[in-house]
Amino acid sequence: MNKIIELDTGLIAAASAVGKMESEGPLGELFDIKDDSDKYGMDSFERAEAAMQLAAMNTAIAKSGVRETDIEALFAGDLMNQCTSSAYGLLTFDIPYFGLYGACSTAAESIMLASMATSNGIFEYAAAITSSHYCTAERQYRSPLEYGSQRPPTAQWTVTGSGAFIIGRGGKVRITGALPGIVREMGVRDANNMGAAMAPAAADTILRYYSYCGGNLDGIDLIVTGDLGAEGLDILKDIIGRDKPDIVEKLTDCGTLIYDMKRQDVHSGGSGCGCSAVVLASYLLPKLERGELRGILFIGTGAMMSPMTIQQGEGIPAIAHLVRIEAGR
Amino acid sequence: MNKIIELDTGLIAAASAVGKMESEGPLGELFDIKDDSDKYGMDSFERAEAAMQLAAMNTAIAKSGVRETDIEALFAGDLMNQCTSSAYGLLTFDIPYFGLYGACSTAAESIMLASMATSNGIFEYAAAITSSHYCTAERQYRSPLEYGSQRPPTAQWTVTGSGAFIIGRGGKVRITGALPGIVREMGVRDANNMGAAMAPAAADTILRYYSYCGGNLDGIDLIVTGDLGAEGLDILKDIIGRDKPDIVEKLTDCGTLIYDMKRQDVHSGGSGCGCSAVVLASYLLPKLERGELRGILFIGTGAMMSPMTIQQGEGIPAIAHLVRIEAGR
Repeated sequence: MNKIIELDTGLIAAASAVGKMESEGPLGELFDIKDDSDKYGMDSFERAEAAMQLAAMNTAIAKSGVRETDIEALFAGDLMNQCTSSAYGLLTFDIPYFGLYGACSTAAESIMLASMATSNGIFEYAAAITSSHYCTAERQYRSPLEYGSQRPPTAQWTVTGSGAFIIGRGGKVRITGALPGIVREMGVRDANNMGAAMAPAAADTILRYYSYCGGNLDGIDLIVTGDLGAEGLDILKDIIGRDKPDIVEKLTDCGTLIYDMKRQDVHSGGSGCGCSAVVLASYLLPKLERGELRGILFIGTGAMMSPMTIQQGEGIPAIAHLVRIEAGR
Repeated sequence: MNKIIELDTGLIAAASAVGKMESEGPLGELFDIKDDSDKYGMDSFERAEAAMQLAAMNTAIAKSGVRETDIEALFAGDLMNQCTSSAYGLLTFDIPYFGLYGACSTAAESIMLASMATSNGIFEYAAAITSSHYCTAERQYRSPLEYGSQRPPTAQWTVTGSGAFIIGRGGKVRITGALPGIVREMGVRDANNMGAAMAPAAADTILRYYSYCGGNLDGIDLIVTGDLGAEGLDILKDIIGRDKPDIVEKLTDCGTLIYDMKRQDVHSGGSGCGCSAVVLASYLLPKLERGELRGILFIGTGAMMSPMTIQQGEGIPAIAHLVRIEAGR
């Protein structure tokens, strides 16, 4: 595919729900729902993540003014095995459900598919929901928290957060284009350095976008990746800088925005589906709504390995899905 | 959503790749690729499953006559944690990738999303690919094969198989409609009886379809669920029979078609993403192409639990995605 998918649909409303670490970060005041216990009233972290999705979704519906019965599809996913945070978290909704898995790119993937559907009149309204949780991710992907394993400097901190987006007719902020990612595997085998694994995929998508649009980035104030973290963002800037030094200054990353990288003990920054979702919902979208940003390229980045493929010595395949979001004109 | 999504796109070509048990079943002669070792030349079952996806995809492309570079998107998924069979299996394709997770409903989900995109001109051609593998699924979801655990009569046999579909412009067989499923959880907690967990979701989708189309099933010769197995199909017939006894005779299930339920030791029948995918690719589609079937409702059925949610005592949420496929007129 050698073209950008042109879209025109509204990003009507968004909501974010997060945990303690996120609420103590620089964006802390901007999130809709915070729970310093990270438990959302539940007795397991898995139930907590599901409850957090439900809270974000209900809040987004309330903010949108769209009736729940008018939402015709849910596009959802998370990092849990078999994507159970979404399947269980959204169980109360009597709405058709499309389960997605794009690792940490799922926020962008879900917004992209919901936008493709509403922009073409398949649905009038659709929702995109994703989440991640530090405590569920640690014990599934790495070690139980009780083990207290040491983390190398390139490791990232999985964001406890869920972002929900209501997409369709109306809305001041518009989703105007999309470029789905191609899976790239560049030989990185270190699951504690996912930024390095994902940066080449992000660069690939950004450079393809640049090529397909003829180098015209007028009106695009930021190119925001999902969760490369400090290490991955540095690598991305290196790769992009070689070819297109003029766009390096537009690059930033949700994983470096969500935490105070000096004060908070998060090593290379935030990661997880929830990272890009809550930064978009709470920080970037309001800036677009207020006209402080004219347009952004929002690029979900995902590392598509599993603990087993790492144990089996495979490289880490990565993907980067791009969505163009613009302030209404 | 109270309507069927009307579509019009071609199901241009399909291919299937399977293992030993499937090749020895009643549809054995119909599959494109068989490997009696179940290994597809690889040194692990996980790599084998990925290689099987690649084989199915390459065969489907060859049969379609569509150039690989003209396929604009892959919609893919499988049952492995983090959907790695798809991410690794399709890595060689320089094609945008949408990762999906719908448990065993993923074949229908991927065909539905590819059809929504091509029917609305977003892509000219797209591919839908799914797989499952008995040996990868057993050790991930249940016990390592070496453990030799006993299986209850309601247990199903995960199909070793991958089905790939090329969808878009042209093609005699048409995808003409879709009804995405709603996640339903009816309190079934037995992971060895997924048919019982999925049957209510299948009934829900079928009865919604029946209602939205005003009871008009003219031209629909079969209503084929993905992998309810013998137990689940019985339950489905019970549920449907109460309300709409006239359509019970149209019901059948890929999980009961793929194996000889008397001769092969598969208990309640086949399951897995690969089950519905290879039965559609090798058995149902050729019947539509030859005009032996006028139209079918193909209903992927998925049980969305994980081993952890079962351990944590949760019920099994299930989903059923419906795609209407018709012989060209």
